Amino acid sequence: MTDSFGIVDVQKAQKALQGHIFQTPLAKSQKLDKALNADIWFKCENMQHTGSFKFRGAYYAISQLSASERLAGVTACSSGNHAQGVALAAREFGIKATILMPEDAPEIKIRRTKSYGAEIIHFDRSKVDREVLIKQITEEKQATLIHSFENFNIMAGQGTVGLEIAEQLKAFGKKPDLVAICCGGGGLTAGVSTALSALYPEVDLYAVEPEGFDDTARSLISGKREKNTKLSGSICDAIITPQPGELTFQINNKLLKSAVCVSDEEALSAVNFAATELKQIVEPGGAVCLAALMFKKIDVSGKTVAVTLSGGNIDAAMLTKALETDTHLG
Amino acid sequence: MTDSFGIVDVQKAQKALQGHIFQTPLAKSQKLDKALNADIWFKCENMQHTGSFKFRGAYYAISQLSASERLAGVTACSSGNHAQGVALAAREFGIKATILMPEDAPEIKIRRTKSYGAEIIHFDRSKVDREVLIKQITEEKQATLIHSFENFNIMAGQGTVGLEIAEQLKAFGKKPDLVAICCGGGGLTAGVSTALSALYPEVDLYAVEPEGFDDTARSLISGKREKNTKLSGSICDAIITPQPGELTFQINNKLLKSAVCVSDEEALSAVNFAATELKQIVEPGGAVCLAALMFKKIDVSGKTVAVTLSGGNIDAAMLTKALETDTHLG
Repeated sequence: MTDSFGIVDVQKAQKALQGHIFQTPLAKSQKLDKALNADIWFKCENMQHTGSFKFRGAYYAISQLSASERLAGVTACSSGNHAQGVALAAREFGIKATILMPEDAPEIKIRRTKSYGAEIIHFDRSKVDREVLIKQITEEKQATLIHSFENFNIMAGQGTVGLEIAEQLKAFGKKPDLVAICCGGGGLTAGVSTALSALYPEVDLYAVEPEGFDDTARSLISGKREKNTKLSGSICDAIITPQPGELTFQINNKLLKSAVCVSDEEALSAVNFAATELKQIVEPGGAVCLAALMFKKIDVSGKTVAVTLSGGNIDAAMLTKALETDTHLG
Repeated sequence: MTDSFGIVDVQKAQKALQGHIFQTPLAKSQKLDKALNADIWFKCENMQHTGSFKFRGAYYAISQLSASERLAGVTACSSGNHAQGVALAAREFGIKATILMPEDAPEIKIRRTKSYGAEIIHFDRSKVDREVLIKQITEEKQATLIHSFENFNIMAGQGTVGLEIAEQLKAFGKKPDLVAICCGGGGLTAGVSTALSALYPEVDLYAVEPEGFDDTARSLISGKREKNTKLSGSICDAIITPQPGELTFQINNKLLKSAVCVSDEEALSAVNFAATELKQIVEPGGAVCLAALMFKKIDVSGKTVAVTLSGGNIDAAMLTKALETDTHLG
């Protein structure tokens, strides 16, 4: 089935999303470029509507439903970024969204998801099997589940981030040697990798995960989908998933060079650096690629590099904590 | 003399700055657009090298010095953004910069100015006449003063912000009906106004100042350069000046429709909104135009609007304080 998913699907999504999403800019830090001897471009998906790339996939997936499917409403399960994406997209289509959110989701994400008019149902991330619960809720409501990554339309929507990276680098006369992508279930990673590997067959694609939630890294090594032992316990809430998706892993296993992981402390340090140097509000899960570069998990010396800053929905207390860390780059 | 300053000077600066400055993006908030019934675009000069637009003018002004002038080094007086701009530009030209900074400048600005290799001399903003002191230091060092606004090359460099706003809006198929510019001494305001009034003769241009430092607003009414009674006491340190510049006011008096002012509380609330909704780190003085829109100091209903976010060098404590305010927009 993955053989049927390709850049044309991502290009089709891009066309459908035109005028509905914000074409987020690339940002740059002279200081980081000098420190790492590289030409590094940050794709600012923190500036996307709802504060993360998730709106892309959510809007596109809902746009592809039939009129009767849309009428019955949609459901989703998410710690908050996909939740906001689905909630806003549902509002724009004038339909009902019911969202399953873990109790320990950041307060800002719960508040913002509500502000888009979605109904929220909370669950305990460490005790409840969210896949079972969301299936049950979806059946009760006779709605359509908009899965956060196991859905080719979601992957296609998120993949438009990759097409934009390519277009924007091209406008600067550049092409990427290496791209690092924030990875939870692997939807953004699969979509961006599909787009960029088609455009640049030589590009090295990396997924970046939080320490303790390195399911994709271990799965790439073993060749089969490995599970995480924990279901909570990282500040990178946006990219904690039990295991890689079946559909996303088929793609990522084929296209990724490798996956690396960063600690919570490294992610926080990257949040600080993004705030201080890039002047961007980025949440820990959205800063893992920057952290991977800062802490030399990926060698970028001499390369043109694109990196996703995938979201910016961070609570004030967490941002304040990040601003107290040492950025290790002065 | 102002008759000799026009858009061609700004265009010349743009050409000279190509490859040296970062073409900062425009950002957008759906929430603000809906709340104000307007199409509002934020020019993110917080993302410029050094974290403010000041690098543009500083680099261009230094590039226009003779080789022997450059050899003798430069001086500047600034609370920190022009300081960083001059310090980094001087480092890029391999010359010495001596910067006069008020003692109460934000710590982040002092630290970053030092990090670019400048020598810093502190003074008491409320007691010392900075124009006299900087003149004395400049003579002692036989250096060239890079004034933060009374310099046509500085105005031309800052004006490139206006040219980029025009180009970027044009790429979205838009033209501005109204532009609001953060205003201290008036260099950015004069440069941007010169560029945009030449391109759009119908555009309404507004300067925005902090309450208690509304020298430009009062000067526009009286028709002559009015002084502020205080020399310190606003968190908008970036845009506190004793009075409008002689050169800048001649231009601004001719081109501006009006100037409005915002309180420190309103500026802080705008810093919060920029962080939460635009995901941008903006300092209070860089957020005054956003504040002017949020608190209805300027009527933007039904209009296409461009607004400068002029800088993002804010101390962590001030940002934390801002995040505790109510944004008044949910």
